[in-house]
Amino acid sequence: MRIALLGGTGDIGQALALRWARDTDHEILVGSRDPERARGKADEYETELDSVGVEREVKGFANEMAADRADVVVLAVPAFHVRDLVESIADRIEDADVLVSPAVGMDRDDEGFHYKPPKAGSVTKLVADAAPEGVPVVGAFHNLSADRLANLDVELDLDTLVVGDDEDAVGTVVQLADQIDGLRALKAGGVANAAEVESLTPLLINIAVENEGMHDVGVTFE
Amino acid sequence: MRIALLGGTGDIGQALALRWARDTDHEILVGSRDPERARGKADEYETELDSVGVEREVKGFANEMAADRADVVVLAVPAFHVRDLVESIADRIEDADVLVSPAVGMDRDDEGFHYKPPKAGSVTKLVADAAPEGVPVVGAFHNLSADRLANLDVELDLDTLVVGDDEDAVGTVVQLADQIDGLRALKAGGVANAAEVESLTPLLINIAVENEGMHDVGVTFE
Repeated sequence: MRIALLGGTGDIGQALALRWARDTDHEILVGSRDPERARGKADEYETELDSVGVEREVKGFANEMAADRADVVVLAVPAFHVRDLVESIADRIEDADVLVSPAVGMDRDDEGFHYKPPKAGSVTKLVADAAPEGVPVVGAFHNLSADRLANLDVELDLDTLVVGDDEDAVGTVVQLADQIDGLRALKAGGVANAAEVESLTPLLINIAVENEGMHDVGVTFE
Repeated sequence: MRIALLGGTGDIGQALALRWARDTDHEILVGSRDPERARGKADEYETELDSVGVEREVKGFANEMAADRADVVVLAVPAFHVRDLVESIADRIEDADVLVSPAVGMDRDDEGFHYKPPKAGSVTKLVADAAPEGVPVVGAFHNLSADRLANLDVELDLDTLVVGDDEDAVGTVVQLADQIDGLRALKAGGVANAAEVESLTPLLINIAVENEGMHDVGVTFE
């Protein structure tokens, strides 16, 4: 399978690229607005993988080109860029592709981080509304610490939640998540349930801030 | 310490009463609108504790009387009863007491459960607004499965999140939570951060519904 990480030069994009490249045989495409930057980062990821004994090709492209080539397209950009990104790749994605939304709208005040969904109700719903008709949208990977994932020395023992209205697409993303060592995908229902999933992200940051010794907090359900 | 569980005949009230009675020396007061019902339930809890080898007195009272006698008052009623309950006990609680809010506003549709906070922004905030000036309010125990807690055969290995603006009151509730075997309290900041904590509850139910073999889902952070 070909996975494009758009905004794959950012922290969660890097984290997923490294983990998938190390733990699976899927082809990893790093996307960026600037293809030169994408190629530079892809080279960096190759070097990092090499340092842990994994010889792997990672390719860099402009976002549109990466989306065009991929089966699964992860929108690894901040929430306020998501809509523009979806529009910019709309004519490059097909019904057979899967769009994956990991972004969360948050704001911060003196008290901590707060969930701040877009008017659509959640970023996942915003993506579902903006995506071309027929292209399935799945929310996933919201609640993972990019720093923790990007450090390949760290063994994971974490869950991530997956929401979506298209069963096949959800199944694809659940499988991709489960293929990362130490990560378990759990389903949380349809796109209508995305807000509760996304609002876990500011909560995890608040927990890290408020409790001594907790950093890059992740979650497990049992 | 004296802990009053108002609405202590309901499921989360029962669960906390049994765990605190078994695992601590705190005096447990079960409150209900109907004092006869409170006394009947208190007797039931005593019998259940006796069956696991714990000889313990549990007392039942009308909610107002239980609140009057207690140092920590847990509002273990559904979200839509919380404001009335706080008003009904307002002249029975003092600045030295701590009000604890475990309730969550939710609704349900075909997709699943959704977080539905009151206009105040969260149930914890609603309680803070309704409480007499000077009485500290702490949100806690939202994300615990009452069925799992009420079954004393089940060994816990769960976290619960605590929010509040009064450091001493938060410290008291953190300690009370930590005193339950297998439960760990984590702080999540002030009352302003309660919505993210409360919205975990519908998420846990959705996860239980959507994933085979998961029941009474709880959460741990790491």
